[in-house]
Amino acid sequence: MSSKFEPSEDVLSGETTDVYFARTIDILRHEKLNPVATMEVFSSREGLLCGIEEVKALLAKVLPEDNREVWALEEGETMGRKEVVLRITAPYQSYGLYETAIAGILAHCSGWATAANECVEAAGRIPVISFGARHVHPSVVGVMEYSAIIGGCAGCASIVGAKLAGIEPSGTMPHAMIIIMGDTVKATVSFDKYMPPEVPRTSLVDTFKDEAEESLRVARALGDKLESVRLDTPAERGGVTPDLVREVRARLDLAGFKKVGIFVSGGLSPERIRHFIESGAQISGFGVGSYISGAKPIDFTADLHEVEGKPVAKRGRIPGITPNPRLKRVM
Amino acid sequence: MSSKFEPSEDVLSGETTDVYFARTIDILRHEKLNPVATMEVFSSREGLLCGIEEVKALLAKVLPEDNREVWALEEGETMGRKEVVLRITAPYQSYGLYETAIAGILAHCSGWATAANECVEAAGRIPVISFGARHVHPSVVGVMEYSAIIGGCAGCASIVGAKLAGIEPSGTMPHAMIIIMGDTVKATVSFDKYMPPEVPRTSLVDTFKDEAEESLRVARALGDKLESVRLDTPAERGGVTPDLVREVRARLDLAGFKKVGIFVSGGLSPERIRHFIESGAQISGFGVGSYISGAKPIDFTADLHEVEGKPVAKRGRIPGITPNPRLKRVM
Amino acid sequence: MSSKFEPSEDVLSGETTDVYFARTIDILRHEKLNPVATMEVFSSREGLLCGIEEVKALLAKVLPEDNREVWALEEGETMGRKEVVLRITAPYQSYGLYETAIAGILAHCSGWATAANECVEAAGRIPVISFGARHVHPSVVGVMEYSAIIGGCAGCASIVGAKLAGIEPSGTMPHAMIIIMGDTVKATVSFDKYMPPEVPRTSLVDTFKDEAEESLRVARALGDKLESVRLDTPAERGGVTPDLVREVRARLDLAGFKKVGIFVSGGLSPERIRHFIESGAQISGFGVGSYISGAKPIDFTADLHEVEGKPVAKRGRIPGITPNPRLKRVM
Amino acid sequence: MSSKFEPSEDVLSGETTDVYFARTIDILRHEKLNPVATMEVFSSREGLLCGIEEVKALLAKVLPEDNREVWALEEGETMGRKEVVLRITAPYQSYGLYETAIAGILAHCSGWATAANECVEAAGRIPVISFGARHVHPSVVGVMEYSAIIGGCAGCASIVGAKLAGIEPSGTMPHAMIIIMGDTVKATVSFDKYMPPEVPRTSLVDTFKDEAEESLRVARALGDKLESVRLDTPAERGGVTPDLVREVRARLDLAGFKKVGIFVSGGLSPERIRHFIESGAQISGFGVGSYISGAKPIDFTADLHEVEGKPVAKRGRIPGITPNPRLKRVM
Amino acid sequence: MSSKFEPSEDVLSGETTDVYFARTIDILRHEKLNPVATMEVFSSREGLLCGIEEVKALLAKVLPEDNREVWALEEGETMGRKEVVLRITAPYQSYGLYETAIAGILAHCSGWATAANECVEAAGRIPVISFGARHVHPSVVGVMEYSAIIGGCAGCASIVGAKLAGIEPSGTMPHAMIIIMGDTVKATVSFDKYMPPEVPRTSLVDTFKDEAEESLRVARALGDKLESVRLDTPAERGGVTPDLVREVRARLDLAGFKKVGIFVSGGLSPERIRHFIESGAQISGFGVGSYISGAKPIDFTADLHEVEGKPVAKRGRIPGITPNPRLKRVM
Amino acid sequence: MSSKFEPSEDVLSGETTDVYFARTIDILRHEKLNPVATMEVFSSREGLLCGIEEVKALLAKVLPEDNREVWALEEGETMGRKEVVLRITAPYQSYGLYETAIAGILAHCSGWATAANECVEAAGRIPVISFGARHVHPSVVGVMEYSAIIGGCAGCASIVGAKLAGIEPSGTMPHAMIIIMGDTVKATVSFDKYMPPEVPRTSLVDTFKDEAEESLRVARALGDKLESVRLDTPAERGGVTPDLVREVRARLDLAGFKKVGIFVSGGLSPERIRHFIESGAQISGFGVGSYISGAKPIDFTADLHEVEGKPVAKRGRIPGITPNPRLKRVM
Repeated sequence: MSSKFEPSEDVLSGETTDVYFARTIDILRHEKLNPVATMEVFSSREGLLCGIEEVKALLAKVLPEDNREVWALEEGETMGRKEVVLRITAPYQSYGLYETAIAGILAHCSGWATAANECVEAAGRIPVISFGARHVHPSVVGVMEYSAIIGGCAGCASIVGAKLAGIEPSGTMPHAMIIIMGDTVKATVSFDKYMPPEVPRTSLVDTFKDEAEESLRVARALGDKLESVRLDTPAERGGVTPDLVREVRARLDLAGFKKVGIFVSGGLSPERIRHFIESGAQISGFGVGSYISGAKPIDFTADLHEVEGKPVAKRGRIPGITPNPRLKRVM
Repeated sequence: MSSKFEPSEDVLSGETTDVYFARTIDILRHEKLNPVATMEVFSSREGLLCGIEEVKALLAKVLPEDNREVWALEEGETMGRKEVVLRITAPYQSYGLYETAIAGILAHCSGWATAANECVEAAGRIPVISFGARHVHPSVVGVMEYSAIIGGCAGCASIVGAKLAGIEPSGTMPHAMIIIMGDTVKATVSFDKYMPPEVPRTSLVDTFKDEAEESLRVARALGDKLESVRLDTPAERGGVTPDLVREVRARLDLAGFKKVGIFVSGGLSPERIRHFIESGAQISGFGVGSYISGAKPIDFTADLHEVEGKPVAKRGRIPGITPNPRLKRVM
Repeated sequence: MSSKFEPSEDVLSGETTDVYFARTIDILRHEKLNPVATMEVFSSREGLLCGIEEVKALLAKVLPEDNREVWALEEGETMGRKEVVLRITAPYQSYGLYETAIAGILAHCSGWATAANECVEAAGRIPVISFGARHVHPSVVGVMEYSAIIGGCAGCASIVGAKLAGIEPSGTMPHAMIIIMGDTVKATVSFDKYMPPEVPRTSLVDTFKDEAEESLRVARALGDKLESVRLDTPAERGGVTPDLVREVRARLDLAGFKKVGIFVSGGLSPERIRHFIESGAQISGFGVGSYISGAKPIDFTADLHEVEGKPVAKRGRIPGITPNPRLKRVM
Repeated sequence: MSSKFEPSEDVLSGETTDVYFARTIDILRHEKLNPVATMEVFSSREGLLCGIEEVKALLAKVLPEDNREVWALEEGETMGRKEVVLRITAPYQSYGLYETAIAGILAHCSGWATAANECVEAAGRIPVISFGARHVHPSVVGVMEYSAIIGGCAGCASIVGAKLAGIEPSGTMPHAMIIIMGDTVKATVSFDKYMPPEVPRTSLVDTFKDEAEESLRVARALGDKLESVRLDTPAERGGVTPDLVREVRARLDLAGFKKVGIFVSGGLSPERIRHFIESGAQISGFGVGSYISGAKPIDFTADLHEVEGKPVAKRGRIPGITPNPRLKRVM
Repeated sequence: MSSKFEPSEDVLSGETTDVYFARTIDILRHEKLNPVATMEVFSSREGLLCGIEEVKALLAKVLPEDNREVWALEEGETMGRKEVVLRITAPYQSYGLYETAIAGILAHCSGWATAANECVEAAGRIPVISFGARHVHPSVVGVMEYSAIIGGCAGCASIVGAKLAGIEPSGTMPHAMIIIMGDTVKATVSFDKYMPPEVPRTSLVDTFKDEAEESLRVARALGDKLESVRLDTPAERGGVTPDLVREVRARLDLAGFKKVGIFVSGGLSPERIRHFIESGAQISGFGVGSYISGAKPIDFTADLHEVEGKPVAKRGRIPGITPNPRLKRVM
Repeated sequence: MSSKFEPSEDVLSGETTDVYFARTIDILRHEKLNPVATMEVFSSREGLLCGIEEVKALLAKVLPEDNREVWALEEGETMGRKEVVLRITAPYQSYGLYETAIAGILAHCSGWATAANECVEAAGRIPVISFGARHVHPSVVGVMEYSAIIGGCAGCASIVGAKLAGIEPSGTMPHAMIIIMGDTVKATVSFDKYMPPEVPRTSLVDTFKDEAEESLRVARALGDKLESVRLDTPAERGGVTPDLVREVRARLDLAGFKKVGIFVSGGLSPERIRHFIESGAQISGFGVGSYISGAKPIDFTADLHEVEGKPVAKRGRIPGITPNPRLKRVM
């Protein structure tokens, strides 16, 4: 686990922190103040905790081994509103600089994992694949898709995300490839010819022709090798709807292709997924993009609650350790 | 500019891309298909374009110098809904792998810059500082705060963001420092003693005592050296309101501290900022956190519109080059 | 005009009236009461008056020629809420039996004309064709489409309606014909072969294939003879949208078929029509069905206001003649 | 049954159809195409099916006796949204011309029957009489009131409607009669004098005087012969309300007229009827007008699903016979 | 003016005050603390100031003549939200006990005057009479109706209110009198016989018969002596509506009683009054009850802003005198 | 009881009545009409009946002892919408003059008692104190707070109200006293020094300093003698919230002051009280002001239902005695 989340030099040096923490550490050193202090971190809303493994990897690097105590929930656990998910007791100078990074890692990763989990809950037993790398900066594609997997996704499209999560990346084919090759059947046959056998044959059927017509064309071209067709109809053409899925299903069945699955993508959200599920349309997988990757981070707040064993707190907070029996000691 | 946005090894190698683009390039190479193709990128909603400099740095690395044409809007320009902001013409194999990264950079950075701009517009002539590093993963703290500056922010708190934007980081002091030192006046005096003279003296006055009382205490302790007080009252205590600002202002004035400014932070959004502005309360600066850093990315779509000079498009899109006289040739 | 609206035997005999009017006439005859009475008819809401020609044809049959006075607005005129549109002065026994029929003709026809007019207003200079015969009982198809023409429609699909309005019926081809013939191009070519030259060649292009693909196929098959394509995409496939129109337009233009128009139908209402108009999509005609034919009738109320020259009224109404300078004497 | 719904010459000749069906039959004859085809008709929303008897009378006239199969729900049965209510298998040329009429009969009649049924459901055990002939064209007064009876109404006011439904028409007296005679008591006494004994004596009591006062006057004048009073107070005087019913009831009771019923009319809808029922006011009957007669028709769609035994369908629909075990073979 | 608002013994003794003010005065006497203090009183919302004359009468009794300064707005002036309407500077012990009474008088009277003014504004040139004594405790009937007059009412029904406002009380006759006498005409004739000539003859016409019929009966009975009829129809009978007024007007005019006015009462509010005004119905007066008398009091807040010349204030308020150029010195 | 509600001279003389009742009595005397009549009084909405004791005291003075019958609900009983709460049978001239006063007493007192009861219901077992004297005219402070006690309040602040209700007045200390003395601790110590021991020591802690800090200061100063602190934070400082209560509670507990209660006031309503209760914050009492004292009076209607034993009623009402088994004979 530790190798996966090696803290970067920028984080360790304090480059990514808010400057006032760097100044604080500087002043405390001048003042020779380095009390043992307890910081608690709590979430602003309900969700799934994610990023705590990366935070632990950071703390393991910076806290003194002989004078530290860290309690936390586990990666992927649910957390309540205002629940304390992390408690650090150590000399303040050793970790004060990292408050920004700790809160930021938890905020972003928990936001993604929670959104993914909402989709997964909505989809029931049908697998959800994270397709949202194209909506975030490449520097966080890996952690974003790792968080989606923690949130319950069965796969993700990015190579770096899959690597971080320890799985194989998932994916079909882009519209660009079909446009370059000029025909969906041609592109699908070429895909089948050059891809290793373990890659599932899923053909994207909305590029040039009516989806139902194209589905039958690729099914006839690939025969038993076709695993599924993907519907990704753009909004300008009405998007993918339960009625469309039902019709493609019926036409594939009538033509004898009962084993070919239907994979749905395009503007999906938990609400849209529930709409598909409630319609009873037979779907073999959902691809979710910006609902997960563009999820709002979940704000986390870090507060000092004890200094040298004495309860303390800023106005608005309760002084002293906040009891939470769900926390486990991790360091 | 080029050094600022050096593409990372992970991006160049295609690690951060969706796997189906990697597979597409692989298949096209087997098929020996590498037509000159034109890809257009358009935005899903109105906003401020940001990230185009980073995209250009990437394209400069990968497109063949003698067979490329790139047109784009400029960093920080406004863009309309569905407006084409980037058009690339080059052999498809040279750039097809980077569709994910290009869209992701623009999506995330434009989302941040647009949100920042909304705050700046709301604040009128009062400066807005980006304080939101604590809500995003440290790997994007730099680009996030760079984007906020592009969006019009006058400063940012993170060291890496300030560096990327070519400015000095801004910041006051954290609650943690005051709690460690046990008293706001003591902390402020210490800050004044050890910080270099160019760092403005701003004291955070809501930690232990009534904000008005504490403001007078620090003003009396620092005298002319105090530049401003910061109000960051937590929601549990009613948050910062125009009435609170007005009262602190009146009490500082009555005590002769007319030059001490009032800096406001905590849960700010364009709507809240407008509420302060309309109330007429005298404020010297706003610190905005998650409204900017947690802004939803703006989805971008990349479409092929010409292959070997012939108009083409997937269903739902118009084949051929989309005219946009605002684009400038950049490569 | 009189021949058009020959009153039926059922109406003249009182069969279609409410039984209490038949009883009233019976009693008044027993009582030998037949005063000259003035009845006024007013509308419950704003709209276009329609049916008055048919009412006049009825009154011409039943009122005594030498003791009658009828004032009315004209067919197709606007009428205000509670405005008197018809005033009859004659011996009560001559017309009392027909209160039900008079109110019913005006209610139903004015409802249809008013709804048609809303669509026509929304469509501006683009012609609107009434397609709604399939939503009403065949006994009123004629008067319904006549009313739609009075409301401003440029044409209607039913033969009987067109006859009543003195125009040629409009129409393209049904999905059923294409399904029977098995292919849209084949059906269009056959239509072209057997229809007289004055019938416009409009092909319905959403039955089997993608609308854009099918439009190009029929355009190529018929060449200059094709006047337009009709888009009637069902809701299950996203319905017809401005984006679809724009795309079909662009693909027809790219292929050189700039003269082929696009006719839109399916679930249209004034709001939907306005949406198309505001989108700027180039449309050559709208086909409107149930919005017009299923329009709610406009209730009319008939009240006696004078008996033998003396003002009278039931509670809630003002006794005496209601002044309305817009009325013209018609009988 | 067959005599009741004799198809008119206009329907049989195709005059009332959309012209494109006439053209289709013409072209198919030229092409010598007359396959056995299956057409299914389904409803756009829930309701009560009505008009199917009239449709069957039409089909009996036009389908070849030796090559036809018709399945349908029964007159007055409930139907679900998108439920198939009618399935015709026969040579297409024999019935294609009548698609407009079939859909129109079902749409209009089911709309009326469904609205009537909503009122009847709301009224519980209190009888509902259809009074709405004055809001529709006289050509459909008969089928409209027939449909209301199918929907559960206990009676209707029009003579033609009652005849079609095989009952006696219901009705009281119009305001016009009372105004002509100048006094409610005088009109009621005259009514009693000349009407046959089987016609119930119901007096309309809101024309000239306070309803409670007038009720006592007519009760005193007719004694035991008075069956009920009708309240039809216009909106200008507050309309009929539960409070008014309760007061008239109490004053009649105090004066010893406990057997005289109170019949209510004027702007009634299921919601208003429920309001009366919930108020507990004692009412002996409701007269409903435009809520039933002005009901929006229920759109029906007719689709070909098989041609010469092969499943087929336009885009958006499922090819082949749609299973519906509720259908019964009727031809 | 002073005699009108003689402070009662209960107020002067402090009986009606909140007990903590009595205790405060007691303690301050023990502590021998009696500084000159400035109290400001401001309103919680916009409205019409009323009660200030009564407050001044109280202050004139209790403040020391040689050491006091009182500034105030005038009776009946408009006041803004949070505007200071009264400022008292005097030894605190002289007036501290009366904070409850001062705030209470202003709150209740300003609430009534403001509500009355809303009705008067809505009614334009038509007079509004306050009829609401029956909704408040008799101990405040006088001040309530005085406040309504200050708010612009042309009259009031209570004897004590009229006396306080220096006018004659207004009123017609109650339903009870008509019921006791058994007939409206009889009661009206009796009223005319025994009332002095200066009392206007207004007959209440909704007790037993239809309002229009009764209006004609009383007009015929009293002839030119009848000034107006009053419509007060209860909600159970639809209340008074513009349509009813219009009809009664028309029937009076037709019978030659053009000079008889129509006075409207029953559940009136500014909104209902505006509805009548906009309808154009000719009305000679409005009688308003609970909208005025049941108006919510307008909260006033009293704050100390200076003690012995030094600015002071509790948290949340601005220390020192609040500038308000509209205040005038009154003592 | 009778002494408590001695009718005032103004009420007995008819000064506070609507003038038309005075005129009615005058006319009836001239006409020598004084029938025994039954008047019923009913409420316009649900609530708690209050004021009936005062009404009975008035009736006892004016009704003839040998010819009267009075039935009523009891003080503080619940009453339904339109329920008869009082029935008087006596010669009309003896009580007709007092209809205004009877309705007004019940309206105002029942409005206050009902509002108080809503607060008390919301607060569950936590006592509610009426603090609203400052929002009503001093002439009704007594009956207002008496009504609040009838509605379930545990105490009230005004001396006159407490006297009427037979309890001791409740109260803490005003902001004014603390401002005059310049410090909360000083004021609290002085209060403790001079107040008799039975007055609870409750200190108001939001005047100058942070509420939590001030609570600890007064707790340390008074030790065991401090019963509670009162939080009355103004809206400008966020008002009192459950979070503030929880924090003050926690800080008092940490410092060892577990027995000191927290009393909450400021803008309370049943909804706000429920919000506190649901939050679980530990509160020892609520002080409610304008929600109770500014409550809208509950309109009461008085109708004659019998005259000389004969059922009678105006239009809209049911003639005769209205049965109500809950009424008890009280006179």
